[in-house]
Formats: sequence, C-alpha cells, structure tokens
Amino acid sequence: MSACLVVLSGGQDSTTCLAWAKRRWTVVDAITFDYGQRHRVELDCAVEVARRAGVRHHRTITVDSLKQLGGNTLTSETGAVLGVTGPGGLPNTFVPGRNLLFMTLAAAWAWQLGTTDLVTGVCQTDYSGYPDCRADTMAALQQALRLGLESQITIHTPLMWIDKAESVRLAQAEGGLDLLAWTHTCYAGQVPPCAVCPACVLRAKGFAEVGIADPLLVRLGQPV
Amino acid sequence: MSACLVVLSGGQDSTTCLAWAKRRWTVVDAITFDYGQRHRVELDCAVEVARRAGVRHHRTITVDSLKQLGGNTLTSETGAVLGVTGPGGLPNTFVPGRNLLFMTLAAAWAWQLGTTDLVTGVCQTDYSGYPDCRADTMAALQQALRLGLESQITIHTPLMWIDKAESVRLAQAEGGLDLLAWTHTCYAGQVPPCAVCPACVLRAKGFAEVGIADPLLVRLGQPV
Repeated sequence: MSACLVVLSGGQDSTTCLAWAKRRWTVVDAITFDYGQRHRVELDCAVEVARRAGVRHHRTITVDSLKQLGGNTLTSETGAVLGVTGPGGLPNTFVPGRNLLFMTLAAAWAWQLGTTDLVTGVCQTDYSGYPDCRADTMAALQQALRLGLESQITIHTPLMWIDKAESVRLAQAEGGLDLLAWTHTCYAGQVPPCAVCPACVLRAKGFAEVGIADPLLVRLGQPV
Repeated sequence: MSACLVVLSGGQDSTTCLAWAKRRWTVVDAITFDYGQRHRVELDCAVEVARRAGVRHHRTITVDSLKQLGGNTLTSETGAVLGVTGPGGLPNTFVPGRNLLFMTLAAAWAWQLGTTDLVTGVCQTDYSGYPDCRADTMAALQQALRLGLESQITIHTPLMWIDKAESVRLAQAEGGLDLLAWTHTCYAGQVPPCAVCPACVLRAKGFAEVGIADPLLVRLGQPV
C-alpha cells in the first residue's frame, strides 16, 4: 500500500495537488494548518475537500507559535493593506518561516504514519516575494528533513514550475475540477469571492486563459 | 550592535551556550519552547537563567502542534520507560522533527529581531539516537533557513563536538558556572535531582571528570 501526505490549505493550489496525488498513491492523507489566518472559511474548505476526495486521515493542526512570535497582515485582524512591502523588501503578507514550519510538521506526522512522500502546492512561477516557496528552499529543507528524521522524505511540488492556467489544466487532467468547486481563494475572505483582490484576479485569469468556467463560481451561481 | 538569539531550554547545555554567547555578542536574546514537556520546572529554570544572564528579550513560545500530532515519552504523562526503543530503532524519547521545528521558530523570531546568529546546545558527541541534533542536519537546516528567509542565518553549535566534561570546562571558561546553579537536567523532574536517571548520571560524570562540584548541587545543599 503506497501512501502520501498532502499539505492542504483549502485553496486552489493544494486542492489541485490533492487531485494529482489521488491518481498516484493508493492512500492519501492530508494535513491542514490553522495558524490564525484571517479567514476561517479556508479551513472549512479543507475539511470539505478532504472529505469529498476520500482522504484516509485528515488533521487540522493549530499552530499558535507564529502568532505568538508577532503578527503580519495574513494573521492579524487589524493589518495593513495586503501587498505592501514589509521588512527586508518582502511583501507584508510574508510570514517568516511559515512554509518551513508547515513542511516540518507535515514531515513529523508523516514519520508517525510511516509515510515518506509529502505533496505541497508551493509554486515558484507566481513567486511574489515568498522565498520559502522556491524550489531551492524545498530541496534544502528536504535534505534537512531526511537527515533530521532519518527518513527518505520526498517533497513533491507538482505546481512548482507551472502558471495558474497550467494549474487549471492539471486539475482538469487529474479529474480535480469538481474539488475546486469547494475551495477558497479570496484574500478578502468573501463567499462568493470578491473578484477584485489579487488572489481572485489571479485565479480568474487562470480559468479565463484555459477557457473554462471556475467550478466554484458555477456552484455559487456567480457570473463566470 | 551585534546580537544573537540563544535557544534556551533551561538545561545545562543551552545555559552553557548562553554563557558562551554572552562573551561573543553585545546583546543576547533567548527563546524557550513549551512543547508540553513532562516537567515544567525546566521552563522556570529558563526564565531564571535568562534573567540572571541579563538577556535582552526572553520569550517562551508554546508549541502545541507536536502534542496534537501524537505523544511520546517526553511529552506524555503516562509514557513508557525512558530509553526504550520506539519506531525506526530510535529511542522513544525522540520527538520527530522537534529540533528542526524549534530552530525554524527561532529563525522566524530572529528574522523579526533583525538577528542572523542562532545559538543552540545540540551535541553530536552524546548522540543517543537523535538525528536532528547532528551537525549535518544543522548544516542542511541552516541552508533551508537561509533560502527560506532570505537571511544569512548562521546556526552556532558550540557543544557539537565536545563531551560533558569539556562542556563543564567551557562553562567555567566562559564564566557560566554560576548560571548552571539554576539549571534543570533531571529526567525524573526532581529538585534536588534524582541522581539516578540517565540525564543526572551524565551530568554528574561531566563534573566528576573535571573535578569540580556541580553548582546546582552546591546551591541545593546536596552531596557532590
């Protein structure tokens, strides 16, 4: 029996990865992180997507430590405008070390499950100042995890080098469009999505380029 | 102004590192992790040691995520006997990914403090089945942190290649013996220490080899 563990946020990218993983492993588990993100709807989406995809184990892990270490606009209620540059020239949506932390926790659970394959939707193509999403970061982290856990952990990143349109095509090819109907993307936390925040715009652009309707908007009876 | 961040558990090793760091940086900050360890006395020791050493900022960060991912003998109240082998041939005191997680959180705080130097008491000499304490693991993690945070993080491990006796000599040379009087080592959580658990025995052996009295035992009026 082959199994993998998908890091599932409840968004478009990780859900596409889940569809991709379902075609490649007999058993798929999923882990979601509640790190005090502004919009709880994303966590609900992760639960719904995991259920519909038939994952074996799905756990939502509360990660308070990032909040304790200080806020930023993705975790604080009274944050500044998204997209503004913060310390070090990075966007103020940058939560330092977030992906490193999440992947380490995922690997720790994988270790207990006896799983060595991790799947994450990080993507260098849309690289918007998040250095912990880059391929070289993931490669270094994979090495640290292999050594630190004495386990042949492999971090799979099926979206690393593709853009949003190719990601939509991938979801389609892997039979994942139905799952995308239950995802959340909107930075403003709105359902139906606001259609004007950078995340909504990027998502819409991907579907437009492929020429198919976003299943989320179809499900919600929104104009596509 | 040069500053560093010490990962401080409240034990002998990290306290020795703190003394070492005080001689090398103008400003020293410290971070402690409350991960549900069996004995809270260690956390109190970290606070006391930090206060006495005059660190600038000391924070104790609660890390619940490890507990959520499942117990082991160091975090569970009703655990098995310490030292017994668990999954993968590792000791049942192994918390998978613990040091990776702690160093990543430390780096995240360092990033916010504008600090790039981290100090940790991990040690390969006493290597007792903890792969996340090894030099090659730390080197790989340092690379992952550098890339993931776009910061020239350096992980300093002054104890990596020395044994407990040399560690006692280092504490002495760095003027850290007074601080060791306020540390906690005993696996049984006892104050005064039980003197029979593996941690107590190892500590006593170090002081005996150097031929000096353990300042903790002296402070508590115990036989040395």
